[in-house]
Amino acid sequence: MEYRIEKDTMGEIKVPNERYWGAQSERSLENFRIGTEKMPHELIRAFAYLKRSLATVNQNLGKLDAKKAEAIIQACDEILAGKFDEEFPLAIWQTGSGTQTNMNLNEVIANRATEILGGDFRKEKLVHPNDHVNMSQSSNDTFPTAMHIASVIEVEEKLLPSLAKLQAVLEEKEKAFASIIKIGRTHLQDATPLTLGQEFSGYKSMLEHSASHIRLALESLRELAIGGTAVGTGINAHPKLGEMVSVELSKLTQKQFVSAPNKFHALTSHDALVFASGANKGLSANLMKIANDIRWLASGPRCGIGELSIPENEPGSSIMPGKVNPTQAEAVTMVTCQVFGADAAIAFGASQGNFELNVFKPVIIYNFLQQVRLLSDVMDSFRIHCAQGIEANTEKLTHNLNNSLMLVTALNPYIGYENAAKVAKLAHKEGLSLKEACVKLELLSESDFDKYVIPSEMIHPKA
Amino acid sequence: MEYRIEKDTMGEIKVPNERYWGAQSERSLENFRIGTEKMPHELIRAFAYLKRSLATVNQNLGKLDAKKAEAIIQACDEILAGKFDEEFPLAIWQTGSGTQTNMNLNEVIANRATEILGGDFRKEKLVHPNDHVNMSQSSNDTFPTAMHIASVIEVEEKLLPSLAKLQAVLEEKEKAFASIIKIGRTHLQDATPLTLGQEFSGYKSMLEHSASHIRLALESLRELAIGGTAVGTGINAHPKLGEMVSVELSKLTQKQFVSAPNKFHALTSHDALVFASGANKGLSANLMKIANDIRWLASGPRCGIGELSIPENEPGSSIMPGKVNPTQAEAVTMVTCQVFGADAAIAFGASQGNFELNVFKPVIIYNFLQQVRLLSDVMDSFRIHCAQGIEANTEKLTHNLNNSLMLVTALNPYIGYENAAKVAKLAHKEGLSLKEACVKLELLSESDFDKYVIPSEMIHPKA
Amino acid sequence: MEYRIEKDTMGEIKVPNERYWGAQSERSLENFRIGTEKMPHELIRAFAYLKRSLATVNQNLGKLDAKKAEAIIQACDEILAGKFDEEFPLAIWQTGSGTQTNMNLNEVIANRATEILGGDFRKEKLVHPNDHVNMSQSSNDTFPTAMHIASVIEVEEKLLPSLAKLQAVLEEKEKAFASIIKIGRTHLQDATPLTLGQEFSGYKSMLEHSASHIRLALESLRELAIGGTAVGTGINAHPKLGEMVSVELSKLTQKQFVSAPNKFHALTSHDALVFASGANKGLSANLMKIANDIRWLASGPRCGIGELSIPENEPGSSIMPGKVNPTQAEAVTMVTCQVFGADAAIAFGASQGNFELNVFKPVIIYNFLQQVRLLSDVMDSFRIHCAQGIEANTEKLTHNLNNSLMLVTALNPYIGYENAAKVAKLAHKEGLSLKEACVKLELLSESDFDKYVIPSEMIHPKA
Amino acid sequence: MEYRIEKDTMGEIKVPNERYWGAQSERSLENFRIGTEKMPHELIRAFAYLKRSLATVNQNLGKLDAKKAEAIIQACDEILAGKFDEEFPLAIWQTGSGTQTNMNLNEVIANRATEILGGDFRKEKLVHPNDHVNMSQSSNDTFPTAMHIASVIEVEEKLLPSLAKLQAVLEEKEKAFASIIKIGRTHLQDATPLTLGQEFSGYKSMLEHSASHIRLALESLRELAIGGTAVGTGINAHPKLGEMVSVELSKLTQKQFVSAPNKFHALTSHDALVFASGANKGLSANLMKIANDIRWLASGPRCGIGELSIPENEPGSSIMPGKVNPTQAEAVTMVTCQVFGADAAIAFGASQGNFELNVFKPVIIYNFLQQVRLLSDVMDSFRIHCAQGIEANTEKLTHNLNNSLMLVTALNPYIGYENAAKVAKLAHKEGLSLKEACVKLELLSESDFDKYVIPSEMIHPKA
Repeated sequence: MEYRIEKDTMGEIKVPNERYWGAQSERSLENFRIGTEKMPHELIRAFAYLKRSLATVNQNLGKLDAKKAEAIIQACDEILAGKFDEEFPLAIWQTGSGTQTNMNLNEVIANRATEILGGDFRKEKLVHPNDHVNMSQSSNDTFPTAMHIASVIEVEEKLLPSLAKLQAVLEEKEKAFASIIKIGRTHLQDATPLTLGQEFSGYKSMLEHSASHIRLALESLRELAIGGTAVGTGINAHPKLGEMVSVELSKLTQKQFVSAPNKFHALTSHDALVFASGANKGLSANLMKIANDIRWLASGPRCGIGELSIPENEPGSSIMPGKVNPTQAEAVTMVTCQVFGADAAIAFGASQGNFELNVFKPVIIYNFLQQVRLLSDVMDSFRIHCAQGIEANTEKLTHNLNNSLMLVTALNPYIGYENAAKVAKLAHKEGLSLKEACVKLELLSESDFDKYVIPSEMIHPKA
Repeated sequence: MEYRIEKDTMGEIKVPNERYWGAQSERSLENFRIGTEKMPHELIRAFAYLKRSLATVNQNLGKLDAKKAEAIIQACDEILAGKFDEEFPLAIWQTGSGTQTNMNLNEVIANRATEILGGDFRKEKLVHPNDHVNMSQSSNDTFPTAMHIASVIEVEEKLLPSLAKLQAVLEEKEKAFASIIKIGRTHLQDATPLTLGQEFSGYKSMLEHSASHIRLALESLRELAIGGTAVGTGINAHPKLGEMVSVELSKLTQKQFVSAPNKFHALTSHDALVFASGANKGLSANLMKIANDIRWLASGPRCGIGELSIPENEPGSSIMPGKVNPTQAEAVTMVTCQVFGADAAIAFGASQGNFELNVFKPVIIYNFLQQVRLLSDVMDSFRIHCAQGIEANTEKLTHNLNNSLMLVTALNPYIGYENAAKVAKLAHKEGLSLKEACVKLELLSESDFDKYVIPSEMIHPKA
Repeated sequence: MEYRIEKDTMGEIKVPNERYWGAQSERSLENFRIGTEKMPHELIRAFAYLKRSLATVNQNLGKLDAKKAEAIIQACDEILAGKFDEEFPLAIWQTGSGTQTNMNLNEVIANRATEILGGDFRKEKLVHPNDHVNMSQSSNDTFPTAMHIASVIEVEEKLLPSLAKLQAVLEEKEKAFASIIKIGRTHLQDATPLTLGQEFSGYKSMLEHSASHIRLALESLRELAIGGTAVGTGINAHPKLGEMVSVELSKLTQKQFVSAPNKFHALTSHDALVFASGANKGLSANLMKIANDIRWLASGPRCGIGELSIPENEPGSSIMPGKVNPTQAEAVTMVTCQVFGADAAIAFGASQGNFELNVFKPVIIYNFLQQVRLLSDVMDSFRIHCAQGIEANTEKLTHNLNNSLMLVTALNPYIGYENAAKVAKLAHKEGLSLKEACVKLELLSESDFDKYVIPSEMIHPKA
Repeated sequence: MEYRIEKDTMGEIKVPNERYWGAQSERSLENFRIGTEKMPHELIRAFAYLKRSLATVNQNLGKLDAKKAEAIIQACDEILAGKFDEEFPLAIWQTGSGTQTNMNLNEVIANRATEILGGDFRKEKLVHPNDHVNMSQSSNDTFPTAMHIASVIEVEEKLLPSLAKLQAVLEEKEKAFASIIKIGRTHLQDATPLTLGQEFSGYKSMLEHSASHIRLALESLRELAIGGTAVGTGINAHPKLGEMVSVELSKLTQKQFVSAPNKFHALTSHDALVFASGANKGLSANLMKIANDIRWLASGPRCGIGELSIPENEPGSSIMPGKVNPTQAEAVTMVTCQVFGADAAIAFGASQGNFELNVFKPVIIYNFLQQVRLLSDVMDSFRIHCAQGIEANTEKLTHNLNNSLMLVTALNPYIGYENAAKVAKLAHKEGLSLKEACVKLELLSESDFDKYVIPSEMIHPKA
């Protein structure tokens, strides 16, 4: 490979000639050979939006000449178009302020902008990474700004739509199953009946609530640190910078952003991401419950509960022929574990700020974006490959319903809780039907029993 | 001790004669000798509000006669007045639906109501625990309802007020310290200056944001499961029960409650508590940052940062005479650990529901109420015994400010980032002041340096 | 209440006259009104052992006169006998070194020792809390020493015995169920058979492995910080102190202790407790799996898996008569949540040491002892009230076994995996038995099928 | 792209012609488009070792003909040599048994072996993925076996060596700094002195203890599930298979492995990984403490503690010229957050097994290998780029030492704890030296003070 010499305030360093990045990116690559986790592309895109907005605003403020601004803007657009995906190779495990990734952006944009302006970035810098691309900025305000931009975009463009689509499928099932009465289960034990549609309405309601929580959590994520520069005071920035950049970003991304009212908070606290991660965790807890229910209800085929059928997507076993497993549900439950783990990492990092800066930013955003990506993808996958194809096994549902002892609950108003308990216990002990037990205990006649125990009357309140 | 015989559907059991509880409470005591954690009194109080409301509503619906209803109401009022605190001894580690605690309430209320009606509960039950006190209810809807009632009350009456009071003290400090300029610190390293007031404004803003998150999280907690009875269908309940009880409870407690729109969700999902726990976790992460900052800034007295003084509350060491330690800050940071741990327990439990019920309710509410209690108390304690007494060590603050190399940042616009870096490095290496280094490098005259490097000009943006 | 005046280096303070504690305990009570969690009695006992050992050793080293030493020893013995349980009321949420609890011990012991020596501790101190009871010690070495003493005692005297007893019951079941062949389940789906005894052997092996892990984790807990005094150097202590106290403690407690080889480590790192908490977490993960299996296998009574019966301990529902729930299993799974949460708190605290001390000691030991207590108690409870009474429902087990499609796996060697899959799929689709499907597909004769598919031949390897 | 048709028991599917993988891998790719996390190459390598060993053993048992066995062995060796790295593209978020990755290996090996035997795998299978490569195996025993193989290899070849190297550097520093006396700090407050070497001995001891814990945790990881096949009974396997494969693997990898004594445990419990993750967590807690100490001791350059110098590796700030930050320490502390998060995910997954299988295997091993990789890498990085270059700032160290008030502790034996406290308080209040305060309080003469307060006498115990 051929190399060129780049330099920064630490001195000279060799950089692969073909690369747009510069000295500081190269130093980071060499100094942080840690793990396989790279800065997520969602964050790089957010940074490109941000740097683009800053070029516009700095130009409007008369601080950056139009030619340079336009070159920077074009370079950012090219990054957004995916042309430089290979130019952002830095590890998560770098400086905790993300400075090196901010510089990675500054360097790639400066070099590409130099090229756009007709220069050869390998020899000269017509656009300087610090003085022009990073003008009026610090890593300390740009990195948390990019964290929020990426979070809002991914939550609004991926997470909430995937959630809504799954919710819609569950609502379809709710309607399709509205008239199927089935046995309820609490403590894994047979309980009073409900409709399969009601059961699915619970799942739908879980997603509705989670969506609502996520939307509430979005509000704080709309606040941007930009304008705070090095320590929150805004040194070297224009007083209107934060506001102008927020407006420009909102326009560019079609998302709503505002300048954070207190920049000291914005640099040191990641409470907004902790709170949003809590919403994600609530969603994943709900998804685990839904996925568990569905795989239990589909358990069998012969020795399980077997009330639902789910699609067969692949052979289930390398040794047991014909086995079909609830693999989509398993992906959901595994994602839940990961989302929980990520939440622990996020909150830990968020608690560890000192003075004017929290230096756990990369690990926080890495985990948050992983949560969002996994939850979005797994809801899509589960919807397409499982939820849509769920069918009711009416035969098994009916058999279970009629067989259940908990229909006895309907007798509480007629023979009292204690007598009803005796009926259920006798039936269980002697293998009788509830009706047989009632008669044997001389508590009700057959005809009264039939009048009182009507499953379809047990699935709603009564005045 | 003397005993009487009580019975339930399992048969007879001996109960201490002096106790108001009955057979099922006694069974639970014997069957669950696990740990020292008891059902929190906040939850018992919430249950008393709930049982009282149900008596009123059941009477209004014409299902419960006035005499019994009034006796139940009086018994509940006595519980709320603290007269029966010893009667609720059950462990957290019981059935996961909290049924035994629901029955503990039902039994104590029924027995006390019997007494109020002139009966001897040791011999007869003028009010029956299941048929009257638990009328139209199930543990499965009352327990989660009590969880939400307790949570809303404790958050609104303890957590948010404690938070607001600490925020007010931090705001006082913000104002008192508004004109004290000090060195900033990022990555623990000297950075550009800010005012001590600005630093405290960041703390205040953290609490403001946390309060906002907690308030957002309250909304879902206002939804009550009551009316769902055994599996969410509302079997054995009146269709208006949920709504009527919510109205009655709002009146009684002066808190806002609504009937949960989907009872299947309300019995199986604890997403509202996961979400609220995430808000608590965000608050505790913020508190840890604040407490850490304050103890670091107060570190010394001679070999630390020493920019703040904090109150001396107790001897610090059993071996080092005269040592004073930041013990209130330590209580805060330890509480943060606990709140994080509690959050992990809450979310884990919330993910483990099956079918029509989540049976991890006691462990969830135990941890949530612990979070709220600890955060409230520790904010009060930290405020009274530490925050209020924080004073600025102006001598040390001034010395550090004038000594710092990061004032060089003010020179970026005049000599450029790279030259400014050379100045800082030379000063560091040779132990010079920045001015001396500037002159030695022939970058600026002394008078220009004095014109450009003015700390009070470095603490805000500039147009 | 009557008060006396006590004093310490901060000045005078009023203490309730009846109390043995002194000024510093009283200050802590007033300064830390936080939560309901008190220093666990297991830790107080460990401290009493430690203070007793130090009196002996200090006497043997000629530093403490015999009369004072004997009085201190007697006072400690009285604490160990439970005579002063009300004298240790301090909160967990105090100074992070536990200094106030160390002083609580020093004060109570000094006052009681004064009394023993014939003095009136309300007027004079014949034994001084710092100079005599705390002689050659610091909170910084005594508190972590007491943490390890309490941990070793509780693990060896409670946790491991409870574990062994549960393991023994599971082994009994393994033997009792050795010849019951049943259907296996993977992914919740029917799989090849095994014996119920084999299934229980897996549970037993889980506990064996967990016990082994806990024992391995004990080794580091035997290392004691004592002798390190204030910062680990051992200032003001005799060079042999650590070793002599460890020997004395081993003798007193009949547990094995050694002086920690590096006292700087012993004061600042709680890796031993993090590691031991990991072992506890592994145990609780195993317990959750066992408890889940058992409640699923006992699910029903009519609409679940129903292969096991478990004891009925209490009425299961306040609304559904005759319902019996797997409540002991629920206590186990809730304890698992708590143990996981406690582990998060422990590790967080352990990561936050600075310089010569970790000041998260109370929160760490509180959570560790909670883990140990809950795991011990819940294993006892589960054993007595559930595991011992587990019975096999042979009828259901046999029905499920004969009905299963996964017996087809036995045909792999004869007709190949792909043909076997076809058989299973056809049987599933058309509701046939495997044999019928084999014949229909002309893959095997009935007699060959009977020769190859023998469940009792499918439960072990074959040469 | 060109495609060929492959088939499995579900039917036909198009596979890119150039790929060695087959139908089931392709299905997984299509069915699980979730996230960016792929099966780690460490696990693929472990699988290759395992499949190679099984070919050998199956040949030795006379079940697999030599030609096929040799072709399989060669294919595995090629995978181990890195020739097929692109052929294992499956996501972590697939079936929870890892069946699809087992089949991915089976398919690639079968196709490559077919090629080796002169066949064209696009047209015929001279070696069959299930019948030959997966002979006598199930995903349910091979996947957990590969998990343990990968874990042992990575811990022994990466983690422990990286740890030992960092420990060695810390020991070098311990020696180099053995005679530098410095002020100690507890609660962030000045305390009695110690040597800088002693401080580093604490760090070294932390790593020693962590290494010991990790080695203890390795023991259970050496137990292999292989031989258990589908549900732990060993159906379709030879009774000696587990043992023979363990011997073969030990030979191949030069690591010690044994056949798990209870296969039901081996398929359903991942307690060994939970326990090992606890050891990793303990290590990362220790590393966080070390990294925090070092960055605090190096804080400044002018307004911090400044007792240590650490290497300058890159420009620290994009806005503050000349700023150098403790970035390696930040990478360490961020990795700690991640390791803690991973631990939460591992334990959660491990708790969720059902019946004969735990189906959270991919998420567990993904997180465990991430822990090991990150800890290894970050210890290397921190060692090379930070620890090796740590230097003592003797001037600052000496200044702090002489300035400290906590030297007063040396006077306890001469003037008593309470008088010593008065001295320290007076000195603090009036800005005096300790000596001046002693004289002013008429407690000691100057010469006695000098005789008693000798820092070099305060850094060790005294007889």
